[in-house]
Amino acid sequence: MMGTPLTVVDLIERAEKYFPKKEVISRTHTRTECLTYEQIGKRTRSLSSALASLGVKKGDRVGTLAWNHHRHLEVYFAAPSMGAVLHTINIRLSAEHLIYIINHAEDKVLLIDADLLPLVESVKDQLNTVETFIVMSDEKAVPESSIEGLLSYEQIVADGDETYQFARDIEEEDAAGMCYTSATTGKPKGVVYSHRGIVLHSTALSMADTAAISESDSVMPVVPMFHVNAWGMPFVATMLGATQVLPGPRMTPQIIAEMMDKYDVTISAGVPTIWLGLLQELNKGTYDTSSLRAILCGGSAAPKFMIKAFESDFNIPFMHAYGMTETTPLVTLARLKSYQVDLPEEERLEIRSRQGQVVPGLEIKVVKDNGEEVEADGEEMGELLVRGPWIADEYYKDDRTKDAFKDGWLYTGDVVTIDEEGSIKIVDRMGDLIKSGGEWISSVDLENALMAHPAVFEAAVVSVPDPKWQERPVGCVVFKEGKEASEDELKTFLASQFAKWWVPDQVLFMDELPKTSVGKFLKRDLREKIKEQLL
Amino acid sequence: MMGTPLTVVDLIERAEKYFPKKEVISRTHTRTECLTYEQIGKRTRSLSSALASLGVKKGDRVGTLAWNHHRHLEVYFAAPSMGAVLHTINIRLSAEHLIYIINHAEDKVLLIDADLLPLVESVKDQLNTVETFIVMSDEKAVPESSIEGLLSYEQIVADGDETYQFARDIEEEDAAGMCYTSATTGKPKGVVYSHRGIVLHSTALSMADTAAISESDSVMPVVPMFHVNAWGMPFVATMLGATQVLPGPRMTPQIIAEMMDKYDVTISAGVPTIWLGLLQELNKGTYDTSSLRAILCGGSAAPKFMIKAFESDFNIPFMHAYGMTETTPLVTLARLKSYQVDLPEEERLEIRSRQGQVVPGLEIKVVKDNGEEVEADGEEMGELLVRGPWIADEYYKDDRTKDAFKDGWLYTGDVVTIDEEGSIKIVDRMGDLIKSGGEWISSVDLENALMAHPAVFEAAVVSVPDPKWQERPVGCVVFKEGKEASEDELKTFLASQFAKWWVPDQVLFMDELPKTSVGKFLKRDLREKIKEQLL
Repeated sequence: MMGTPLTVVDLIERAEKYFPKKEVISRTHTRTECLTYEQIGKRTRSLSSALASLGVKKGDRVGTLAWNHHRHLEVYFAAPSMGAVLHTINIRLSAEHLIYIINHAEDKVLLIDADLLPLVESVKDQLNTVETFIVMSDEKAVPESSIEGLLSYEQIVADGDETYQFARDIEEEDAAGMCYTSATTGKPKGVVYSHRGIVLHSTALSMADTAAISESDSVMPVVPMFHVNAWGMPFVATMLGATQVLPGPRMTPQIIAEMMDKYDVTISAGVPTIWLGLLQELNKGTYDTSSLRAILCGGSAAPKFMIKAFESDFNIPFMHAYGMTETTPLVTLARLKSYQVDLPEEERLEIRSRQGQVVPGLEIKVVKDNGEEVEADGEEMGELLVRGPWIADEYYKDDRTKDAFKDGWLYTGDVVTIDEEGSIKIVDRMGDLIKSGGEWISSVDLENALMAHPAVFEAAVVSVPDPKWQERPVGCVVFKEGKEASEDELKTFLASQFAKWWVPDQVLFMDELPKTSVGKFLKRDLREKIKEQLL
Repeated sequence: MMGTPLTVVDLIERAEKYFPKKEVISRTHTRTECLTYEQIGKRTRSLSSALASLGVKKGDRVGTLAWNHHRHLEVYFAAPSMGAVLHTINIRLSAEHLIYIINHAEDKVLLIDADLLPLVESVKDQLNTVETFIVMSDEKAVPESSIEGLLSYEQIVADGDETYQFARDIEEEDAAGMCYTSATTGKPKGVVYSHRGIVLHSTALSMADTAAISESDSVMPVVPMFHVNAWGMPFVATMLGATQVLPGPRMTPQIIAEMMDKYDVTISAGVPTIWLGLLQELNKGTYDTSSLRAILCGGSAAPKFMIKAFESDFNIPFMHAYGMTETTPLVTLARLKSYQVDLPEEERLEIRSRQGQVVPGLEIKVVKDNGEEVEADGEEMGELLVRGPWIADEYYKDDRTKDAFKDGWLYTGDVVTIDEEGSIKIVDRMGDLIKSGGEWISSVDLENALMAHPAVFEAAVVSVPDPKWQERPVGCVVFKEGKEASEDELKTFLASQFAKWWVPDQVLFMDELPKTSVGKFLKRDLREKIKEQLL
């Protein structure tokens, strides 16, 4: 067979050739724009030519600090298609981490949204490798800034060569992208995505048995484009010529709901906290979301009541998935098998509230401390291991590689069970599982149960040291606007669903829960925070 | 990213792990069997262990002469999963070609359906490399045969090790399969399929925008398993845990229709002549085919009336595709784009009667004699070139490689047009296009027009030399049972649809048309045949 490499170039060129009339709808800082793939293609080529003119060479890193919009999409293709590496930077990082990862990745160029310029201005003197700063805004004019020689994105695209020929010397193992993931302790860890990995991941997302992304879809990535390539949505949508709806800067549940309604979004992707917010917004009842065929949810386990609410109240199918920065990210996805579709509703909900089966192309196994695989009985817990062509095999120039990558497997740090259908269920993060009196308690199960209470908006459960039981769970709850419940009421609510010793000794009430930059509960901070409250 | 290779082993292991209860329904010589993937997996491992015991080493070729049934499916996985190469042999080859390809491929083992033993017995003394002959039947007993030391498939499977571990030292570029394609002149040409090619082709078939094969499908390959791996259907169906319905030896339109009805087949694949036969059978009106979501048709262009008949008369969606032995085979597939679904019915039919767009993962171009690309206007004709990871890059140990593989492209020998939507339409084979008075006439267009006449069952159009016009078309027609039409009537019928000079000077009536072993019109033979009739 031909040794034709799998590259990101093929994805953008396919959109240009076969879907030039299809559209990307992009909410920017000042307006909502609609560009065809023909326009996106020309602008991407112009940008590639501009990067080349700026001295970007094969393998150089091109950093972005940007929201979900068409310019960011153009960089997604312009950088890898001229041989460079797209480095998407999390805009919610601390200054310390921002400096660390830009220097560690040795970014040569930074493309920055106008409203995020202050972030970069505050750290620019400590960036050792960046030669060119480019501001992305709706104007050609360069805004006032302390960054010397700041260039305008629209100006360099206007000046570029829209017939620029993309690189043809790319090997499929070459780096196409990179993204840093926050570590429990220490500096963020860098993950490099190969061209091959991104292409295979795109095909995985387009399979009928996974997310089934198609040309006829209108795809809205709510998950940020600075987080694991917005779960690969921009790549697969472009490959297939699907309509893209990019919700832009500082999106709110209202903006998301409005755009879903207005642009007939068929599939969207994001973390549970986003969907909790959307659910509240949809309950206001003024949106038509009938075009939605799937809400893809990952990042952390979605509470069962949420799945039910989307499906029963709004007739929006909910699709539970699992992945992480190291896995591009799709690993598993919960779909009913053909012989499960006629099961009673509650059983189906139970199956679909799991994280599901590994997608074609990857392998998983669930192992105990001694390395043996657990029973596939849905009960025995073990760490999830993953292997396959879109799974990282190292952290970029980082000693911590040896902790997570062993014997050809990625050790995810997630504790799961696996049932006889091969469907996994996240029990907890390795560090978050609570060991009480020699038995394990799943913080995730308790959280999801708490969040099903009508007064509770968000809940997290963490362990606190206990002299007698080693560790005990403590609940942390944020109420819905205008609602509340007593500590006793919540404990009684839990006691009806769990063994007595699972019920937290204390439930604390808070105005908000600390979250990571991508919307996951930050349990490390929460444990620190409650130490004070518990004293 | 991990360098995990893409191998056929992953496909069978996925079925074993995640779909052990799903079934393969197999019509054999004496009965219809139903095996689960758990059983298929164990039997496949047993067979792999038996092949290893017989001295089959990595890279050795294992030949099959067999119909579409579960034993053939087991060889599909057993050979490549222990490092050997599955060589499917066309059972309709002449003795001369049979001897040639078995010797040329250097097959070490031959697995032969019991009813096909005579084929092999007649040539066995001229086979230079085969060490072991294995007969596949429903019995463990070995039938009487002139082949010395003939082994029984069921016996070696019973004696094998059902826990055999598949090979882990396979590189994705390693050969997994091979198939010979008949040449216009000379010996058949061998095409080798890599593990990588087969896996990527399987994912291509499972994409929502292509054939969308899914776990919930019941897949019936009517296209023979000795022909381009039954278009990859057994591989993708196994990967996804889809139900497989294998129609067995000497299948007839009646058997196909009965099995479609009985086993709720959702998708089937075959050449137009098969579907013509099925259409006649369905018209007898005693079958429930409501489960069918798609008839996948390739191999040659399907007449528009046939597409219409399936859809209007039987509500069976028809899916037109294009490929060849050298391309694993899927290259293009005709689907409506999202903005085409509301076009008037005739326009939609027109779009869907084309061969369609290239599937994600491959590249095509259409070039003129001078190497320049034709206009994408649906008018200008050129040769179709294909490139990609499941396209062959040579004929196996064959000098004719240089004629078809040039500058990294496969020259298909098919003359096509391409329209502004990127959809191709087959005009003719390079040698079958008729040049009359300096202008091109498409034999395919004339054939499809003739086959739309109510009295015509099959029609082929070939060129004959003409002293004045260089070449002229001649029509060859087979009537439907109990129907007929005059030559003048057919010529008038064509004259209403084509320029006057396109209409064949003569239409000949025949009892049958010569076809290749895979059901395509054998125009070379037809030209020879009519030479006599025209004299």
